[in-house]
Amino acid sequence: VRKLSQIGEFGYLKRLLPRLYWPASLRKQLVIGPGDDAGVVSWKGDTVLVATTDTLVEGTHFERRWQSPEDLGYKAMAVNLSDLAAMGAVIPIGALITAGLPGDTSVNYVDKLYKGLENCAKMWKTGFLGGDTIRSRQLLVSVTLFGAARPNELIRRGGAHPGDIIMATGSFGNARAGMEILRKGLHKERWETPLFKAFQRPNPKLSQGMLLGRKRWATSMIDSSDGLKASVRLIAKASGTGARIDLDRVPVSRALARWAAKSRFSIWEYVLNGGEEYELVFTVPKRLVGLVQKNIGAAVIGEILPKAEGCWAVLGGKKIPLKDYGYRHF
Amino acid sequence: VRKLSQIGEFGYLKRLLPRLYWPASLRKQLVIGPGDDAGVVSWKGDTVLVATTDTLVEGTHFERRWQSPEDLGYKAMAVNLSDLAAMGAVIPIGALITAGLPGDTSVNYVDKLYKGLENCAKMWKTGFLGGDTIRSRQLLVSVTLFGAARPNELIRRGGAHPGDIIMATGSFGNARAGMEILRKGLHKERWETPLFKAFQRPNPKLSQGMLLGRKRWATSMIDSSDGLKASVRLIAKASGTGARIDLDRVPVSRALARWAAKSRFSIWEYVLNGGEEYELVFTVPKRLVGLVQKNIGAAVIGEILPKAEGCWAVLGGKKIPLKDYGYRHF
Repeated sequence: VRKLSQIGEFGYLKRLLPRLYWPASLRKQLVIGPGDDAGVVSWKGDTVLVATTDTLVEGTHFERRWQSPEDLGYKAMAVNLSDLAAMGAVIPIGALITAGLPGDTSVNYVDKLYKGLENCAKMWKTGFLGGDTIRSRQLLVSVTLFGAARPNELIRRGGAHPGDIIMATGSFGNARAGMEILRKGLHKERWETPLFKAFQRPNPKLSQGMLLGRKRWATSMIDSSDGLKASVRLIAKASGTGARIDLDRVPVSRALARWAAKSRFSIWEYVLNGGEEYELVFTVPKRLVGLVQKNIGAAVIGEILPKAEGCWAVLGGKKIPLKDYGYRHF
Repeated sequence: VRKLSQIGEFGYLKRLLPRLYWPASLRKQLVIGPGDDAGVVSWKGDTVLVATTDTLVEGTHFERRWQSPEDLGYKAMAVNLSDLAAMGAVIPIGALITAGLPGDTSVNYVDKLYKGLENCAKMWKTGFLGGDTIRSRQLLVSVTLFGAARPNELIRRGGAHPGDIIMATGSFGNARAGMEILRKGLHKERWETPLFKAFQRPNPKLSQGMLLGRKRWATSMIDSSDGLKASVRLIAKASGTGARIDLDRVPVSRALARWAAKSRFSIWEYVLNGGEEYELVFTVPKRLVGLVQKNIGAAVIGEILPKAEGCWAVLGGKKIPLKDYGYRHF
């Protein structure tokens, strides 16, 4: 009997996604099915409904001793907003919240959890439309978020062309380093703050996604929740291309450099395989790079290649193949 | 420190619901906020988006030894469809699924779980728009479902008037008896089948909800997932009325009567406080009762009273006050 732990999350999802049912009667309404950052259905008029869901579970995504209830709520909302950001110009509208709570959870803890959800929702003018509260042994927060968009302002994963430039909205690897610091319960020094804050309280890049969609500058986009390597590979796979990441150009925080120097991992392990971070990774035609840099301050980190050239990273002139997707739960 | 286990789920939700944020910029779009069977926002044109979410967690809602993965998936979809049914004429469109799975779950189990979700979705032409798969110690399935409706074909909890007749689509108490049979691992006799099937594989009353909404026959509606007593009390509370349940007229299956006879509980305990069942409980003006009975075969089970008369049940001429809401997770 094959167990999920043997096949990896991505293997499992690959088995599952093509099988998911969509009724023939609604075929014309389906704009983007499962497999992108969010699903999209057309509605009345020229707007489409964009929907996504993401869950944080105790023991898998956080521990109560190092994630405050406010930060947990904030992050649960932020990671869903990040999925909408990765679809382009999507206006968030409403969220449904499922909280799974052990019976011995204090009312105070729950109040703070919802305060965190609300604080992040308010930043992006997102409302709460409903929810469900269940008793569970593990604490969990699940958010389903939907928003509205014009279909021609959506950006999918699969629109990149060879020659397009790969860009990113921020630096990579911080959240993974931050999680190590939190998990080990180390004395948190002041310089480490950006690392564990990146893990505890990520900020979704909605303004940048909005502009890239509205102006139709980006040809493909994804958020980096599964790490930079997985992000670039998923864009290349969906677009039927190869890709090169120029590691020397990927933004890295000084804090990460300092943390990696005393860690047993190389800084590039954090940068490529980190995950749990919510930057936008996107591609633009070469001629738009200057415009995009000026307007959203994103960095150039690589280039889309023809499919035959595959996916790899370059570091100091040396080629490193990008083999698998990186982040795994199972 | 007050724990959730001390205040009850309804107490907790009461604290929470009025606090949930909705942005001023979207105020005009909010048709029904949290607190009904589903939330509703207006969209472009004359359709509204109706959204709901419900989760089944191992240990709280089922045990793997007595709920097959197909039935678990089927039920997870059915309970959400039931929430749409309880809103009136809502056409289901798409679902987002979160599966929380222990690492030692077999691939075969997961395949069957999704097959069950799909089988129920197909019955009602509902598609899958996305999802999330997470590692968790407890198995859980969370579904968020949305559909489309015309706002004047929605039926809320709060529209009942004194003199309206309370009706229901089926019999009550079967699922609770079924859960007892399954939980105790008893030898399942043939006559018990409707009881444990009612628990394992409920069928949402979408056709009935659709007709009641489209024809605007019902003045208020709810599904009976928290039990008959809670359903009637919630309608009365939202409508600012009292209510009387005529227990002698509430449909009861022969199997339940047989089960209750050998149980330590009275049959009325099952009927009033059962829960985990998905009938529609609704109110209609007196003059429409015959029409509704002819078209959807629902039973008359009581009457809406003025608020001052409170909520009670009548059994053999004796009045029984309906005190609290009944079903609790915490």
